[in-house]
Amino acid sequence: MKLRDLATPALVVDVATLEHNLAAMARALPGPRLRPHVKATKCTALARRQAALGHRGFCCATVREMEGMAAAGLGEDLLLANETLDARRLGRLDARITVAVDSPETIEAAAAGGLREVLVDVNVGLPRCGCPPEQAGRLADLARRRGLTVRGVMGYEGHAMAIEERAKRKAAVELAMTKLAVAHAQVGGEVISAGGTGSYDLNVLATEIQAGSYSLMDTAYAKLGLPFRPAFAVWSTVVSAGPAWAVCDAGLKSLGMDHGNPAIDGAKVWFCSDEHVTFSGDPEAPGGPLRPKVGDRLRVWPAHVDPTVAYHEALHLVDGEDVVERWTVDLRGW
Amino acid sequence: MKLRDLATPALVVDVATLEHNLAAMARALPGPRLRPHVKATKCTALARRQAALGHRGFCCATVREMEGMAAAGLGEDLLLANETLDARRLGRLDARITVAVDSPETIEAAAAGGLREVLVDVNVGLPRCGCPPEQAGRLADLARRRGLTVRGVMGYEGHAMAIEERAKRKAAVELAMTKLAVAHAQVGGEVISAGGTGSYDLNVLATEIQAGSYSLMDTAYAKLGLPFRPAFAVWSTVVSAGPAWAVCDAGLKSLGMDHGNPAIDGAKVWFCSDEHVTFSGDPEAPGGPLRPKVGDRLRVWPAHVDPTVAYHEALHLVDGEDVVERWTVDLRGW
Repeated sequence: MKLRDLATPALVVDVATLEHNLAAMARALPGPRLRPHVKATKCTALARRQAALGHRGFCCATVREMEGMAAAGLGEDLLLANETLDARRLGRLDARITVAVDSPETIEAAAAGGLREVLVDVNVGLPRCGCPPEQAGRLADLARRRGLTVRGVMGYEGHAMAIEERAKRKAAVELAMTKLAVAHAQVGGEVISAGGTGSYDLNVLATEIQAGSYSLMDTAYAKLGLPFRPAFAVWSTVVSAGPAWAVCDAGLKSLGMDHGNPAIDGAKVWFCSDEHVTFSGDPEAPGGPLRPKVGDRLRVWPAHVDPTVAYHEALHLVDGEDVVERWTVDLRGW
Repeated sequence: MKLRDLATPALVVDVATLEHNLAAMARALPGPRLRPHVKATKCTALARRQAALGHRGFCCATVREMEGMAAAGLGEDLLLANETLDARRLGRLDARITVAVDSPETIEAAAAGGLREVLVDVNVGLPRCGCPPEQAGRLADLARRRGLTVRGVMGYEGHAMAIEERAKRKAAVELAMTKLAVAHAQVGGEVISAGGTGSYDLNVLATEIQAGSYSLMDTAYAKLGLPFRPAFAVWSTVVSAGPAWAVCDAGLKSLGMDHGNPAIDGAKVWFCSDEHVTFSGDPEAPGGPLRPKVGDRLRVWPAHVDPTVAYHEALHLVDGEDVVERWTVDLRGW
């Protein structure tokens, strides 16, 4: 199929850029040094590419992602990097399963659900899941008494991930990891799982980095000066155009909006509606302003990869003007 | 199934509240006075309830919604209230199809796609689709020369929809409708299609109102003092809780975020991540602060119904503690 024949809006992925990103990360963090995070891409076909490059352990954010990865034969070492009370669904899977715990209740759920291995999730500065560092040892003891193997600790420095200035980002990562080191000293175990695309080469404590966005990238991560390039966009058609603005058929339902508006080359984005982006040519754009006409196709660059992918049924792999493959986003839902 | 056994996050709809909303609207705008907008709910099961109450014409925002409605036997009078260049897909449907046009290109696409009926879409103040009012007559002439029947005009006063003060909202609707009246005088035809949940009883020009959100409602529309009540929420489990904050398993992937954070009764919402809402009990809440414990279930009230529904596979209809029905959100995607 030709790109021009693809119904819009549709997610398109540039094959060469994707391969560049996957290879760059595999060089930086070979094999088990990277535990790719499935939540960013929700696609077993993409995970299979990562496994082929040597990363055979994965992490997930939802039980459904874990189920899908196990069903796809990618269950050599699956980590639910999140808390769940619904561990019975995990206990049924034919895969090596580890789950994050941060409370007596999640430990009890893991044990009652038939799981064997856990990581103690530690809060390292982002007000979300994870126990305070000083409670990690007590939770590890509780988990062991409940018959669980504690593989180590996990702590996501999400609050540091988007700091644009590298030195400041590095300092924030280091501070977060001092907390995780304190917890690890109490907990023990071989695994210190942390990090993400924004800290993949800054986090020196973690034994494995939980990066996912690096493969597709987005406009937020593109500001960090990383060696990964924007590989995906929402392919869209201009459906209305006047002298002052134009409208294309992407919108809130096809774009993750929490990091702000998407970008269009040569244009200023005004706002997004359910199924529309209103924009105008930008006279100050380096290549001159876009002059959109009804029927033109263009790439809309998402600001946040994770929710954007989750809103779509498929990734369309593109090589120049050809759509060469269609990968189902098969790990959506819960 | 019991509500407590439902895997989270999941969309739940209170049956009695839904029925209240549907009945209240059917009284206010009986039969063809309402053309329910499918984009808000993306569910043929819900559309069937609206049809049973007498609203047998529907409008859609995407070609996929049109296809799904036609396939479900709900194609008596389907309006694509949006521009498309992909009209061939519509021309294949076994249904009465009308499409909005606002340019020579969209008129040509409709004619070439085998469609017979159009509305001229008019910009009435929201910078999105629609031609300037003074060009509507010329476009209608062009459409007729191309062999299309022009049923009338359409103009969505979206910029007026969320004005909280009723008198100001009414004034904004009236101003918008003066523009649509100018266009209609040039275009002719029986149909003046406009309006939405926020203007359903303020728009006196429209022959039919395109409301969709009224059936489920959201926290944004709840501010307008309408007779429709919040009928749906994301059912969620508290997965982590400490002294300062707690975390439940809803997030950016299960909530439309463009109208801001969702609400939780008795709590202040701090922020949302991909799969998490961080919140804390609100000491000033009327019923006292929520005191969340790990394992608690709660309702997260979405700020915007349309994208929220689009991110889910199903609506779970709930009567008290029972899940009485599961409706697939079968009109997702494009």
